[in-house]
Amino acid sequence: MADQQPHTMCPKFEAAFEILGKRWTGLILCALLGGPCRFKDISEMIPGMSDRMLAERFKELEAAGLIVRHVYPETPVRIEYELTGKGKALKPVMEAVQQWGEAWVN
Amino acid sequence: MADQQPHTMCPKFEAAFEILGKRWTGLILCALLGGPCRFKDISEMIPGMSDRMLAERFKELEAAGLIVRHVYPETPVRIEYELTGKGKALKPVMEAVQQWGEAWVN
Repeated sequence: MADQQPHTMCPKFEAAFEILGKRWTGLILCALLGGPCRFKDISEMIPGMSDRMLAERFKELEAAGLIVRHVYPETPVRIEYELTGKGKALKPVMEAVQQWGEAWVN
Repeated sequence: MADQQPHTMCPKFEAAFEILGKRWTGLILCALLGGPCRFKDISEMIPGMSDRMLAERFKELEAAGLIVRHVYPETPVRIEYELTGKGKALKPVMEAVQQWGEAWVN
Protein backbone atom coordinates (compact mmCIF):
# COMPACT_ATOMS: atom_id res chain seq x y z
CA MET A 1 0.00 0.00 0.00
CA ALA A 2 2.17 2.80 -1.29
CA ASP A 3 -0.05 5.49 0.17
CA GLN A 4 0.00 4.02 3.66
CA GLN A 5 3.73 3.49 3.99
CA PRO A 6 4.75 7.13 4.58
CA HIS A 7 2.10 7.61 7.24
CA THR A 8 3.50 4.76 9.28
CA MET A 9 7.21 5.15 8.54
CA CYS A 10 7.78 8.80 7.95
CA PRO A 11 7.20 10.76 11.19
CA LYS A 12 10.33 9.44 12.87
CA PHE A 13 12.08 9.27 9.56
CA GLU A 14 11.21 12.90 8.96
CA ALA A 15 12.34 13.83 12.47
CA ALA A 16 15.64 12.07 11.83
CA PHE A 17 16.10 13.99 8.59
CA GLU A 18 15.23 17.25 10.33
CA ILE A 19 18.49 16.74 12.17
CA LEU A 20 20.60 15.08 9.48
CA GLY A 21 19.22 17.19 6.68
CA LYS A 22 21.15 20.32 7.53
CA ARG A 23 24.34 21.39 5.92
CA TRP A 24 27.50 20.34 7.81
CA THR A 25 25.67 18.28 10.41
CA GLY A 26 26.67 14.97 8.85
CA LEU A 27 30.30 16.06 8.70
CA ILE A 28 30.30 17.27 12.30
CA LEU A 29 28.80 14.01 13.52
CA CYS A 30 31.22 12.03 11.40
CA ALA A 31 34.13 13.89 12.96
CA LEU A 32 32.79 13.33 16.49
CA LEU A 33 32.46 9.60 15.88
CA GLY A 34 36.25 9.59 16.18
CA GLY A 35 35.96 10.72 19.81
CA PRO A 36 35.50 13.94 21.82
CA CYS A 37 36.70 17.07 20.05
CA ARG A 38 37.30 20.68 20.85
CA PHE A 39 35.67 23.42 18.79
CA LYS A 40 38.94 24.14 17.01
CA ASP A 41 39.42 20.47 16.07
CA ILE A 42 36.14 20.33 14.19
CA SER A 43 36.59 23.79 12.75
CA GLU A 44 39.93 22.75 11.25
CA MET A 45 38.52 19.49 9.91
CA ILE A 46 35.78 21.28 7.95
CA PRO A 47 37.49 24.31 6.40
CA GLY A 48 34.46 25.43 4.36
CA MET A 49 32.29 25.94 7.45
CA SER A 50 32.37 29.19 9.42
CA ASP A 51 32.86 29.18 13.18
CA ARG A 52 29.52 30.87 13.57
CA MET A 53 27.84 28.04 11.70
CA LEU A 54 29.67 25.46 13.78
CA ALA A 55 28.53 27.15 16.99
CA GLU A 56 24.95 27.07 15.71
CA ARG A 57 25.18 23.41 14.76
CA PHE A 58 26.69 22.51 18.14
CA LYS A 59 23.73 24.18 19.85
CA GLU A 60 21.24 22.34 17.65
CA LEU A 61 22.95 19.01 18.22
CA GLU A 62 23.08 19.61 21.96
CA ALA A 63 19.38 20.55 21.98
CA ALA A 64 18.59 17.39 20.01
CA GLY A 65 20.48 15.31 22.57
CA LEU A 66 23.13 14.13 20.12
CA ILE A 67 26.13 15.74 21.77
CA VAL A 68 27.17 16.89 25.22
CA ARG A 69 29.47 19.74 26.04
CA HIS A 70 32.10 19.11 28.69
CA VAL A 71 33.77 22.02 30.43
CA TYR A 72 37.05 21.17 32.16
CA PRO A 73 38.01 23.88 34.66
CA GLU A 74 41.65 24.02 33.70
CA THR A 75 43.73 27.04 32.82
CA PRO A 76 42.94 27.83 30.08
CA VAL A 77 39.52 26.24 30.34
CA ARG A 78 39.09 23.21 28.09
CA ILE A 79 35.77 22.58 26.38
CA GLU A 80 35.05 19.38 24.53
CA TYR A 81 32.09 18.07 22.58
CA GLU A 82 31.19 14.42 22.71
CA LEU A 83 28.51 12.27 21.13
CA THR A 84 25.83 10.92 23.45
CA GLY A 85 24.47 7.38 23.06
CA LYS A 86 21.86 8.80 20.70
CA GLY A 87 24.60 10.45 18.68
CA LYS A 88 26.85 7.40 18.62
CA ALA A 89 23.88 5.34 17.45
CA LEU A 90 24.09 7.23 14.14
CA LYS A 91 27.26 5.35 13.24
CA PRO A 92 25.43 2.85 10.98
CA VAL A 93 23.82 5.77 9.15
CA MET A 94 27.18 7.44 8.63
CA GLU A 95 28.71 4.18 7.46
CA ALA A 96 25.88 3.60 5.01
CA VAL A 97 26.26 7.14 3.65
CA GLN A 98 30.01 6.65 3.36
CA GLN A 99 29.59 3.36 1.49
CA TRP A 100 27.07 4.89 -0.86
CA GLY A 101 29.34 7.86 -1.47
CA GLU A 102 32.30 5.64 -2.25
CA ALA A 103 30.28 3.54 -4.67
CA TRP A 104 28.28 6.23 -6.43
CA VAL A 105 29.78 9.70 -6.03
CA ASN A 106 32.42 10.61 -8.61
CA MET B 1 44.77 10.39 13.30
CA ALA B 2 41.73 12.48 13.91
CA ASP B 3 42.90 15.27 11.67
CA GLN B 4 43.53 13.01 8.68
CA GLN B 5 40.25 11.15 8.76
CA PRO B 6 38.03 13.89 7.31
CA HIS B 7 40.40 14.56 4.46
CA THR B 8 40.18 10.98 3.33
CA MET B 9 36.57 10.19 4.17
CA CYS B 10 34.71 13.43 3.86
CA PRO B 11 34.71 14.59 0.21
CA LYS B 12 32.36 11.85 -0.97
CA PHE B 13 30.64 11.89 2.38
CA GLU B 14 30.09 15.61 2.02
CA ALA B 15 28.88 15.15 -1.56
CA ALA B 16 26.42 12.53 -0.34
CA PHE B 17 25.12 14.90 2.34
CA GLU B 18 24.83 17.71 -0.19
CA ILE B 19 22.07 15.60 -1.69
CA LEU B 20 20.59 14.01 1.43
CA GLY B 21 20.97 17.12 3.54
CA LYS B 22 18.08 19.02 2.02
CA ARG B 23 14.64 19.21 3.48
CA TRP B 24 12.17 16.64 2.06
CA THR B 25 14.76 14.81 -0.03
CA GLY B 26 14.96 11.87 2.36
CA LEU B 27 11.19 11.55 2.41
CA ILE B 28 10.92 11.75 -1.38
CA LEU B 29 13.56 9.07 -1.83
CA CYS B 30 11.93 6.93 0.84
CA ALA B 31 8.61 7.15 -0.99
CA LEU B 32 10.23 6.27 -4.33
CA LEU B 33 11.87 3.19 -2.82
CA GLY B 34 8.37 1.72 -2.93
CA GLY B 35 8.41 1.95 -6.74
CA PRO B 36 7.74 4.49 -9.51
CA CYS B 37 5.41 7.31 -8.52
CA ARG B 38 3.55 10.15 -10.15
CA PHE B 39 3.99 13.69 -8.93
CA LYS B 40 0.61 13.60 -7.23
CA ASP B 41 1.45 10.36 -5.39
CA ILE B 42 4.45 11.91 -3.68
CA SER B 43 2.70 15.21 -3.15
CA GLU B 44 -0.10 13.43 -1.27
CA MET B 45 2.34 11.35 0.76
CA ILE B 46 4.13 14.44 2.08
CA PRO B 47 1.38 16.92 2.92
CA GLY B 48 3.69 19.54 4.46
CA MET B 49 5.67 20.01 1.25
CA SER B 50 4.50 22.42 -1.46
CA ASP B 51 4.22 21.27 -5.08
CA ARG B 52 6.72 23.93 -6.04
CA MET B 53 9.24 22.46 -3.61
CA LEU B 54 8.60 18.94 -4.88
CA ALA B 55 9.18 20.09 -8.47
CA GLU B 56 12.48 21.65 -7.37
CA ARG B 57 13.55 18.50 -5.54
CA PHE B 58 12.64 16.31 -8.50
CA LYS B 59 14.85 18.48 -10.72
CA GLU B 60 17.75 18.27 -8.26
CA LEU B 61 17.40 14.51 -7.89
CA GLU B 62 17.23 14.08 -11.66
CA ALA B 63 20.33 16.25 -12.09
CA ALA B 64 22.12 14.19 -9.44
CA GLY B 65 21.25 11.01 -11.30
CA LEU B 66 19.11 9.59 -8.52
CA ILE B 67 15.81 9.54 -10.37
CA VAL B 68 14.58 9.34 -13.95
CA ARG B 69 11.43 10.86 -15.34
CA HIS B 70 9.34 8.67 -17.62
CA VAL B 71 6.81 10.26 -19.94
CA TYR B 72 4.16 7.87 -21.24
CA PRO B 73 2.37 9.34 -24.27
CA GLU B 74 -1.10 8.36 -23.19
CA THR B 75 -4.19 10.53 -23.00
CA PRO B 76 -3.86 12.20 -20.60
CA VAL B 77 -0.08 11.97 -20.62
CA ARG B 78 1.31 9.96 -17.71
CA ILE B 79 4.56 11.03 -16.06
CA GLU B 80 6.31 8.87 -13.50
CA TYR B 81 9.45 9.27 -11.45
CA GLU B 82 11.62 6.27 -10.71
CA LEU B 83 14.83 5.73 -8.77
CA THR B 84 17.92 4.90 -10.80
CA GLY B 85 20.44 2.33 -9.61
CA LYS B 86 22.25 5.15 -7.81
CA GLY B 87 19.00 6.12 -6.11
CA LYS B 88 18.03 2.57 -5.20
CA ALA B 89 21.48 2.10 -3.70
CA LEU B 90 20.45 4.55 -0.97
CA LYS B 91 18.14 1.93 0.51
CA PRO B 92 20.63 0.91 3.25
CA VAL B 93 20.99 4.58 4.22
CA MET B 94 17.23 5.00 4.47
CA GLU B 95 16.94 1.80 6.47
CA ALA B 96 19.66 2.91 8.86
CA VAL B 97 17.95 6.29 9.32
CA GLN B 98 14.62 4.57 9.88
CA GLN B 99 16.13 2.22 12.48
CA TRP B 100 17.80 5.09 14.27
CA GLY B 101 14.57 7.09 14.23
CA GLU B 102 12.60 4.20 15.67
CA ALA B 103 15.12 3.64 18.43
CA TRP B 104 15.90 7.24 19.37
CA VAL B 105 13.29 9.71 18.18
CA ASN B 106 10.38 10.19 20.59
